[in-house]
Amino acid sequence: MGKTFLLAPDSFKESMTAKEVCEAMEIGIKRAIPDAECIHVPMADGGEGTVQSLVDATEGTLIKKEVTGPLGTPVMAQYGILGDGKTGVIEMASASGIHYVTKETKNPLITTTFGTGELIRDCLERGITDIILGIGGSATNDGGTGMAAALGYKFLDKEGNELSLGGGYLGELDTINMSEVNPQLKKINILVASDVTNPLCGEHGASAVFGPQKGATPEMVQMLDKNLRHYSKVVKEQIGIDMIDIPGAGAAGGLGGGLLAFTNATMKKGIEIVIEYTNLKEKLQNVDYCFTGEGGIDFQTKFGKAPYGVAQAAKSVNSDIKVIALAGYVGQDVEALYDEGFDAIFGIVPGAADIDTLLVKGKENVSRTSESVARLLK
Amino acid sequence: MGKTFLLAPDSFKESMTAKEVCEAMEIGIKRAIPDAECIHVPMADGGEGTVQSLVDATEGTLIKKEVTGPLGTPVMAQYGILGDGKTGVIEMASASGIHYVTKETKNPLITTTFGTGELIRDCLERGITDIILGIGGSATNDGGTGMAAALGYKFLDKEGNELSLGGGYLGELDTINMSEVNPQLKKINILVASDVTNPLCGEHGASAVFGPQKGATPEMVQMLDKNLRHYSKVVKEQIGIDMIDIPGAGAAGGLGGGLLAFTNATMKKGIEIVIEYTNLKEKLQNVDYCFTGEGGIDFQTKFGKAPYGVAQAAKSVNSDIKVIALAGYVGQDVEALYDEGFDAIFGIVPGAADIDTLLVKGKENVSRTSESVARLLK
Repeated sequence: MGKTFLLAPDSFKESMTAKEVCEAMEIGIKRAIPDAECIHVPMADGGEGTVQSLVDATEGTLIKKEVTGPLGTPVMAQYGILGDGKTGVIEMASASGIHYVTKETKNPLITTTFGTGELIRDCLERGITDIILGIGGSATNDGGTGMAAALGYKFLDKEGNELSLGGGYLGELDTINMSEVNPQLKKINILVASDVTNPLCGEHGASAVFGPQKGATPEMVQMLDKNLRHYSKVVKEQIGIDMIDIPGAGAAGGLGGGLLAFTNATMKKGIEIVIEYTNLKEKLQNVDYCFTGEGGIDFQTKFGKAPYGVAQAAKSVNSDIKVIALAGYVGQDVEALYDEGFDAIFGIVPGAADIDTLLVKGKENVSRTSESVARLLK
Repeated sequence: MGKTFLLAPDSFKESMTAKEVCEAMEIGIKRAIPDAECIHVPMADGGEGTVQSLVDATEGTLIKKEVTGPLGTPVMAQYGILGDGKTGVIEMASASGIHYVTKETKNPLITTTFGTGELIRDCLERGITDIILGIGGSATNDGGTGMAAALGYKFLDKEGNELSLGGGYLGELDTINMSEVNPQLKKINILVASDVTNPLCGEHGASAVFGPQKGATPEMVQMLDKNLRHYSKVVKEQIGIDMIDIPGAGAAGGLGGGLLAFTNATMKKGIEIVIEYTNLKEKLQNVDYCFTGEGGIDFQTKFGKAPYGVAQAAKSVNSDIKVIALAGYVGQDVEALYDEGFDAIFGIVPGAADIDTLLVKGKENVSRTSESVARLLK
């Protein structure tokens, strides 16, 4: 009888989407075992590639939408609607990501999450009831005020004028006006995919930890941190939510906190959300082998990366399922993963080569390695 | 009960000897299966590394010996005596190899196999009865006359003067004087390890095919070919051996022919000799898994490379033995080997890297990959 292989890799960044990795794995496995049954479950961890993988895994659709980029100029973003037709999936970076700014233009005083709010608004207008929102890779430090502004919240100074967009102006915040908030907003549930547990302010806060990589000088970090603290005080007084000590409020320049304050948001680890929405555990029933993988795998994979979540899920369903991971880069102390549900980990690289060549040859290298592994399993 | 692994890799050139590969494999296998039994059989294919591997496989000894290099200047060569104490193993390249000449000094008119003859003479003086002689990598085109001269043969012109060393002077050969040939020579059996089947002369002969890479211009090729033809005629008339049409006589610039003419020589494929002298097939009895490997593996591996010989030997002893090959470079159409006794082939490279880095990290990469493979086998 044919063996059943569940294929649940993350994407190999800049080389293959998770779906393409699944396809390459199946080609190799079937060369070894022609009657193998292969179940494709493209994975992600809440970061880059999550929209693509969840759309692929559920046969959903991709939506392109021009929104306001982090610097205030238009960018072409995309988000997904899952196969159920009622769940949206957004990566904040698609609208407000660090890749939209350059060394010269990055400036966390003015960058805004407004575009992310526009994507949420687009979901509201389509009758979406649930949103999965991955918040990694932000260029912003605005506490999620831009996002909220796109949904109707008004952030006013003492004179009643709207503040300019960006974390640099939050020190002047006096009043939050909610009279024009989109009435659909309270009907939508937002599941925030975030592995970050940093608080909003202080030495482990958004500005101090993530500000510098977004272009903040030490003086800017001080100002941004002070502004977020003031902002959280105003939110506490006027909205009734105290975000200052909530773990994860500091994610994505405080967008984590803003989502908790202004929307029906729950935070959860990205990989857990993806496992849930792909029905991974159901699909693992009656499986003999589980293939996973990612562009790079090392000991840190156990801190929330997709292959770790997959390995744990497989072993929780049936400890006899053998879990094999493939990676373009097998890094430091990878053996630590053998205590974490992984049975074997193989690099796919055929020999000395530069990264550009390897990125292009990803599919054939995955197929070749999958074939060899499957030949050992038959 | 513990599984038995036979480890029979070739060397990974410029990175690890075959013995070191065995050791690295065992480290990885034992991390996965602590009670695994590992049998080390360092392999070779008659080319570079054959002396080291056969000495390691039989617990023999290495002998260093200063001899005449291909250009007539002294070089420090080495050869081996196997654990049986009566078999010598020589790589001709150690005395007369192409690595001793440069782009500027390479000149097949004058390069000589004299040093190879000196190594044979050293064996005679030590009472060795059998010699395994690998003849790859030569810098010479002298028909083996230098080798013979070192053992007492005299190659004379019409005036009775000894010819200068090198294939460029063989056109003047008139008489071969055997009065001072070492009397021990006829008592020694020489097993010539060579995969080359080229004849001595003509378009597929030593000079035309291998001359250019040794520095021969088109004019020199013509002269060398003509000289070897004249030489073979003299040998036929005075020694009674017609080497002109013997396959392999053209190996190593005609050293193949010279060995057949002047010594008790038999030619055999290198890998077959190594399999025989390492008792590989006996050691494969009662083995569960056979690991092999080489620096590079591709479809050409089936033309006489060590991993191919090992895979064939394993399957001939017991078709249930799983054969797994590791390689630093997994090359073109490697899948063709799956019809040739290989069960699985894995690259050991962990990610994008230049060759110098990989050569240094060979052992850890072999260990890591061996561990992963063994984890799939337990």
